[in-house]
Amino acid sequence: MNPLETEDQPGTIRLHVRRHDSGAVETRADYVCQEWPVALVFNGISHAVMMCTPCDLEAFAVGFAISEGIVARNADIQDIEVILHEDADLPHAEVRLTVVQQAFAGLKQKRRALAGRTGCGVCGVESIDLLELQPERVPDTGFVEHLAPGAIARAAHELPEHQALTKLTGGLHAAAWCDAQGAILCAFEDVGRHNALDKLIGQLALGRIDPQQGFVFLSSRASYELVRKAARVGIPMLATISAPSSLAIAIAQRAGLRLVSFCRESGYIDYEVR
Amino acid sequence: MNPLETEDQPGTIRLHVRRHDSGAVETRADYVCQEWPVALVFNGISHAVMMCTPCDLEAFAVGFAISEGIVARNADIQDIEVILHEDADLPHAEVRLTVVQQAFAGLKQKRRALAGRTGCGVCGVESIDLLELQPERVPDTGFVEHLAPGAIARAAHELPEHQALTKLTGGLHAAAWCDAQGAILCAFEDVGRHNALDKLIGQLALGRIDPQQGFVFLSSRASYELVRKAARVGIPMLATISAPSSLAIAIAQRAGLRLVSFCRESGYIDYEVR
Repeated sequence: MNPLETEDQPGTIRLHVRRHDSGAVETRADYVCQEWPVALVFNGISHAVMMCTPCDLEAFAVGFAISEGIVARNADIQDIEVILHEDADLPHAEVRLTVVQQAFAGLKQKRRALAGRTGCGVCGVESIDLLELQPERVPDTGFVEHLAPGAIARAAHELPEHQALTKLTGGLHAAAWCDAQGAILCAFEDVGRHNALDKLIGQLALGRIDPQQGFVFLSSRASYELVRKAARVGIPMLATISAPSSLAIAIAQRAGLRLVSFCRESGYIDYEVR
Repeated sequence: MNPLETEDQPGTIRLHVRRHDSGAVETRADYVCQEWPVALVFNGISHAVMMCTPCDLEAFAVGFAISEGIVARNADIQDIEVILHEDADLPHAEVRLTVVQQAFAGLKQKRRALAGRTGCGVCGVESIDLLELQPERVPDTGFVEHLAPGAIARAAHELPEHQALTKLTGGLHAAAWCDAQGAILCAFEDVGRHNALDKLIGQLALGRIDPQQGFVFLSSRASYELVRKAARVGIPMLATISAPSSLAIAIAQRAGLRLVSFCRESGYIDYEVR
């Protein structure tokens, strides 16, 4: 792979590709989204490697630490250092977090409980017993009841403006933070839908934005993990462009989180059937 | 969540949902794809939990074991038992595999090396050093050179016929096995694109089908992990409907695997730029 430029647009590379169209072949430059291994290191111990688009990595690391329950709040993170290895044979990044002793002790304890096991599929979980199928209840602040009738349509309308990398490459997901009117206040893109949500959760923490006073609009489907991450920080509503899974619906109901899917400007489907 | 029926179409449940369309609200029955925690247990030790659509779980477990390098071949798996817990508070499944002593010793060794660590993002990988960024070279059998000119278009045309669950729910990915003419010989669906590919790889092993004499057509984007799994079993070509990531392209080039993306009936983009 010989990128033409890597500095052009962060999160993308430009390559020569061959485009085949109705039998004709054309070589041209095209943008491709970056997927980098990003190691998350807590107090000197490498904890996880996520395949990630290397933008907003500080927000990503903060969001991951919070949504995975490693720290309870941003104040538990004392220092963050993002190190990019752009010129490596294969580029990658490292985010070094220093967390308070109590959080680090909890992480070590959790890791000791998993001693000798590997995890896969669901972040470090190797048996069903360890799955968190009883999510935190989302506090009922009345946000959902006060949502403007056109809020979902407005967010669906505004989202494409916040998907600059997707427009270039076609290869990312976006997570947007919306107010009760559906206005998008900020949005993050990533090759992984979970990472996009973690970047957003991290930004809420960094910006001291109350996660109970807004909703998340996602360009993806709704899975178990996305609902669980949102519930953990008390986000009252998750709206997704594509379909939900059975477990996403079940976990949302247990958490008291409103889940709406197939969100378009013309409508949506509500799964919180009472 | 009160499923109306669970037996209607395996892999889906039926629910009452509220559909909001241009201001009107209608309550109706709708299909949702099943996402179950599926524990993979090797010789009595629970190794990983994947969030999976509970169809073709035997093929899934065989494919996972092979594509993750736990066993070298299907013959190394002596027994498989699939246990469905459909009536549980939250339904889940367990697949118990008995593998030959050599494979189990290797797995224990690998797990010991990871002692006290958890994994996340990339199957059990917690530091960049453990990422397999030097994939196996795919043997050059001449398959790609002998691909029919219209093979990709034909696979793109045929895929929807093999997406019964996606048609009902909108929430799954499909992985199809295609011959040199682009005819789809078999296909698997799952909420996870990696799981769909593992089901396909497992079926190739179970059916003694040569993975070097066909190509995989995927309804998803192309990621690092999908390319790595395909390369491990010697699949010469991966065609995806949506975009590739930078690392998918890099790993495909290192493996000598042909990667084509944005595959439609009218054309595709070739990333193997020499």
